[in-house]
This record gives sequence, structure tokens and C-alpha cells, in this order.
Amino acid sequence: MSYQVFTYEQPFELESGERLPGLQIAYHTYGRPTSGISNVVWAFHALTANSDVFSWWPGLFGENDFFNPKDNFIVCANVLGSPYGSTCPHDLDFPQFTVRDVVRAHLLLAEHLQVDHIKVIIGGSFGGSQALEFALLFSGRIENMILVASAACETAWGIAVHEAQRLALQADNTFGLPGGGGKGLQAARAVGMLTYRTAEAFMATQTDTDERTDHFSAASYIRYQAEKLERRFDALAYYYLTKCMDSHNVGRGRGGLPKALAGINIRTLIIGIDSDRLLPVALQKYMARHIPGAVYKEIASEYGHDGFLVETTKLTAVIRQFLVEKQVRQLPARELAGLMAGDEDFQLIDVREPFEVAIASIGGINIPLKDIPTR
Amino acid sequence: MSYQVFTYEQPFELESGERLPGLQIAYHTYGRPTSGISNVVWAFHALTANSDVFSWWPGLFGENDFFNPKDNFIVCANVLGSPYGSTCPHDLDFPQFTVRDVVRAHLLLAEHLQVDHIKVIIGGSFGGSQALEFALLFSGRIENMILVASAACETAWGIAVHEAQRLALQADNTFGLPGGGGKGLQAARAVGMLTYRTAEAFMATQTDTDERTDHFSAASYIRYQAEKLERRFDALAYYYLTKCMDSHNVGRGRGGLPKALAGINIRTLIIGIDSDRLLPVALQKYMARHIPGAVYKEIASEYGHDGFLVETTKLTAVIRQFLVEKQVRQLPARELAGLMAGDEDFQLIDVREPFEVAIASIGGINIPLKDIPTR
Repeated sequence: MSYQVFTYEQPFELESGERLPGLQIAYHTYGRPTSGISNVVWAFHALTANSDVFSWWPGLFGENDFFNPKDNFIVCANVLGSPYGSTCPHDLDFPQFTVRDVVRAHLLLAEHLQVDHIKVIIGGSFGGSQALEFALLFSGRIENMILVASAACETAWGIAVHEAQRLALQADNTFGLPGGGGKGLQAARAVGMLTYRTAEAFMATQTDTDERTDHFSAASYIRYQAEKLERRFDALAYYYLTKCMDSHNVGRGRGGLPKALAGINIRTLIIGIDSDRLLPVALQKYMARHIPGAVYKEIASEYGHDGFLVETTKLTAVIRQFLVEKQVRQLPARELAGLMAGDEDFQLIDVREPFEVAIASIGGINIPLKDIPTR
Repeated sequence: MSYQVFTYEQPFELESGERLPGLQIAYHTYGRPTSGISNVVWAFHALTANSDVFSWWPGLFGENDFFNPKDNFIVCANVLGSPYGSTCPHDLDFPQFTVRDVVRAHLLLAEHLQVDHIKVIIGGSFGGSQALEFALLFSGRIENMILVASAACETAWGIAVHEAQRLALQADNTFGLPGGGGKGLQAARAVGMLTYRTAEAFMATQTDTDERTDHFSAASYIRYQAEKLERRFDALAYYYLTKCMDSHNVGRGRGGLPKALAGINIRTLIIGIDSDRLLPVALQKYMARHIPGAVYKEIASEYGHDGFLVETTKLTAVIRQFLVEKQVRQLPARELAGLMAGDEDFQLIDVREPFEVAIASIGGINIPLKDIPTR
């Protein structure tokens, strides 16, 4: 594992036209890049996470997990605006930035790391927004994209949630002052918690069995989570990042969502979580319908949106199937000829027609054919 | 319509053991009480409403609505702790109070109004909590109870929502000061809005069709609702009333929920709203299973929990059917004898066995039987 900070010392122009004088992008890498076939796995983090993907996505990313440093060169960058090492706001004069600005900072890092061919990009929630935008902006080659509990565009519902959170941040009169905004941040996180889980999950796990009239478990749980975030995050970053999330719309300037999604030429796996109340599965199905050849898989979970962090066993199974157990199918010779004439990427395992079996069979064992024999 | 304030000048002991030196209860009445058969309809209001039920439940309550002053004597009292005329907190030294305390204030008003026989009690959301508790505490007679989008006990989910709202209120450093807490109240209301509607409804009605990167409709809508409440409500009242709502549990001190509900001897209609995310229909079905003879009806609505205020046409139809078009069914003589021997309230329309038809038929027209004839 390596933690570094990449410093970009030129002005960085934002989508709004405003400029940052330069950029710092904190990032983690795990493993080493291979020459030849790319083993780069680029992970994108969600709202309050950091670049240490092993710390927040264990079970999927780790020494012995599906995405491990033995097989992969894993990269995760802390987003612009986050307090975990990248350039972030220190007062309310910081310019607003969009998901595209966040991703363009990632692109600078990719260039710095000389990454121009990626095996897998993957992200959940806001990480999925970045992955999708990255897919559309990256000038190199991406083989596979995995989007978990994400959408092609921020929803009106997500924006409403974020506005409620920002009202909570702004209710704190110390918001925007150095070190201020802690109580507003607590409240904003508490609002977030309501959308990450489900009403049913709260009822199932936080219902008191006695007859108390105050100090309820559900209230303690919410307050505990709120206080925990206050200790590790920043109110200004929370404000700016929710604004940034609101700007997510891969259709912007690209002729709308269907057209933008139709232009994606990457093997894509889209994973929805059946109990997700923040980004319901309908949003994932929409992406799957519009990205050519995309595969949609749904995970059953009691954890709602948070399932993308919790259900790593199920995620691993679905991702393994998608990436490793690639579909092998029989092709008629005519279709093969078409594929070979076209641009589409495919791997040819074997060609075997009935009359060829005799030619290529030695003692009942089929051996690969080097050339296509004539009859 | 009459608006009055009832002043109770004796100490009022709360469930906590603390005392208020006296009480003011603001209330509205519409129409006049009849002597004889009760025409009293008692309505209970939700979190931020007032005693003017005609103003917030039009379509169900009004001059020409199902509950109208020509046919009914309608009473609605502003709850303890609300800023609409009843005793309410002016600082954080106000003692905490429970739903039972709120309802015991209603009982004092009922006594003052000499109401000891009520045709219908009805409430939605927090109003339903009060109606249910009223049913269990009122010493007089209640014929019918109608609970809309409510529950027998505050849920862990509701408590979690309220705690997030209280964190928002407390994030405002002016909370608790005279005239303070406005921005916290805005944020708390914004959180509430997220639970009153559904994600789907926000997406359907607040999605922008252009490609803006800021000033989204969903955010404006949330802020507008937040500012609107700040102008008409009070932060301290919001805090205390959410605490009060958390205390709702009709099973407390009554051997638990099933036992408390089983003891209700009132014709009961329970209405759930299919899209309600705050108090899902499972909670209403639970009450219907445990209150003897309760009828459960579900209303289809796109408005989520807010459907209880919006869907007055559907509510009217369901309530009319329940109250007016009472079920007429055939009874075997043995069951009739049992009913007549028991306490149960019923209305006998006619008795007709096959052999009686001949006796009571004149020219093919069945006429009512005065006595039960022998064969």
C-alpha cells in the first residue's frame, strides 16, 4: 500500500469557468502495474470516504479479497473537495465544483501515473457517479465498468435530501468559520442516515422492548452516527460535496442521458440493491437499458443503500461471475467472420465444427485448432 | 365556528410527575350538540396543525363536507405544547410531556364542554396517536374511532427521524432563546418533508428538464416548505412535540400493545395509505388485527404519508361507507338471541325466516315484523 499526494501546479479550470490555482490529489495504490495486459483497478469513493479503499470496502478490496494487490494494481483517489488530503474548501469562498471537475482531477492523476489502460473501474453511490463520468472522459482504454447503487443523474429525491442536509449545516451559525459547523454536520449526517437504511431496518434493529418514554435506542443510534462523523469529517466539505453530487448528470452537454449512455463502449455491470431507498433500482435498470450490452444484477439486502458497503460477499459473487466466468458461447462461422472484420473486442477460445472434431481429436481429446481447416 | 381558549386553573400533573401550574387549551367548535343521540365528532390534529380543522382538513371537514356543522358538533383542540393558543414551551425549562399528557388535556376540555358521548373520534398521523390514547382514557362513550396513517406506538423509524430533526434544531445556536431557532426549525421541517412524501413523488414532480448545475427545483421546493413553516411555527414547540410523539405507546402500563388494543370496545376503522413511508401500512394492519372487529381499509395514493391530508375524496368515500352504509347481514335466530342477551351494540332491521315470509307477505311485498312469530 502506498499513500501519496499528487500536486498539480497549474491553474485548474472548473466547469463553472472559475479557477483553482492548483490541485492536491491524495491517493492510495496497492500492488504493482503489469506491463502488457492491464491489471489496473480504479475505485471511486462515496461522499465521506477517503482514498484508502481497503479501509472502507473490506471484503471486496483487501489483501485476500477479490480485488487484491497480488493480482491487481489498485488505485483510489480522494475526491476534490474532501478533507482527506485533497484540495478542499476552507471557507465559503471556495468555488462550486461539479462531478466533472472531480473526475478531471482523477484524469490528471491517471496521466501522472501513466495509466492509459484500465481493467476495471468501479464505484458505489457517489463513487458510481464518478466512475460513469470517468468512463465518458477518460481518453485511454477501459475494459470493464462496475456501478453499484448509483445513477446516471442525481435525482430530484437526492437533491431534496441534500438540500435538507445543507439547511441543517447552515442552521449552525458557526458554519463557514474555521473549525466551525460541527453541530450542523452532525445533523446533516443524521439526515443522511435516514436515507442510507430503511424504515423497516430501523424498526427491526432499534425498537425498544421496554416501555421507556425517552432515551430511545433509535435516537441514540442516530446521535452516535452523527457524532462519529463530526469527529472525522468537515462541515464545509460536506456542503460542497453535496452540491457537487447534485450536479451529476452525464447527459449534460452530451445530448441528454440516453444518448450519453448509448455512447459508452465498455463492458458494464450494473448492480442494484433491492431495498435501496436513496437510489432505487429503477435508476440502475435505466442505465442498464441504455448502456449497450450492460448486464444488470440485483442484490437482496436488508441494508438499503448502505448495502453497497455491507454486502461484499454478494458483490464479490456477482462481480466474479461478471469478470471471471465470462460467457462462452458457440458462434457460427459467419458471425465469427463478422466479428473478425469489425472493431468489437472478443477473445477466441476455439473453433470447432462437427467435421473438424475428427481432424482435431486425438484419442478422444479435443485439441485447439491453429488454423481453420477446409473440408 | 367558534374559537375559544379553555383555561384550567389547577396544577396539571404530567406523566413524568412534573407539574404545570395550569393549562390553556385553545379549541374550535363547529355546529351545535344535539340532545339524545350524540352528534359529537372530535378531531385530533397532527404535528404542526392547529384547532381549526376546517382549515387543514378541507374536503373532509367543512360546511358542505362529510363532517359538517349542520349534522355534527365538531370539536378540535390545539394540543398542549403547540404555539396555536395552548400552553407551550417558551424556553428549555418546560417539562417534557407525553401523548397521554396531551390527551389528558383534551379530557379536561371534554369535561368542560360536558361531552360524555361521542359519535366519532378521528385523527391522522400524530392525531391518530391522540385519538387512540383518547379512546383508552375517555371515561364516556365513544361509538366510532377512525385512525388514518397512524400507529399504536411510535416506531424506531419515527424516533430516528425526530432525532435527526432535533439535531437540526439544536445545531442552531439560537435555539431556546426568545424568538430563536428559526433556521434550525427550517432544517427540521425539511427533514420532515422527506418523510411525508416518497422518493418517487419527488422524482415525478421535481425533476428539472434542463441541464442546470445548481438551483434545482427539488432544492427550491424543500427550502420553500422550510421557510413557510418557520413563518408559522416555533422551534421549541417543534422540539417538544417531536419528543412527545416519541412517547406514543398505548401499551405502556397496560400490559403491552396487543393487550391494550384488545381492550378497545369501539367500532374502529383503520385507514392506511399504500405509499406511506413514515408509518407504513404494516403498522395499521397490526392495529386492525388487535382491535376487536376493526375494519382495515387501504387508500392508494402517490402522496405518501401526506395522503392523509390530501386524499380527502377517497377518505370521505371510505369513512362514509363505514359510518353510513353499515353492513347489513343475515343472522340466525340463535345468534340474534345471543346478541340481545349481550352488551354489544347493534341495530335490528328485520327478522325474516322462510316460514315467516308467508306470514309477513302482503301481495308479494315483505313488510317488517313487529314480533317474532311462532311456527
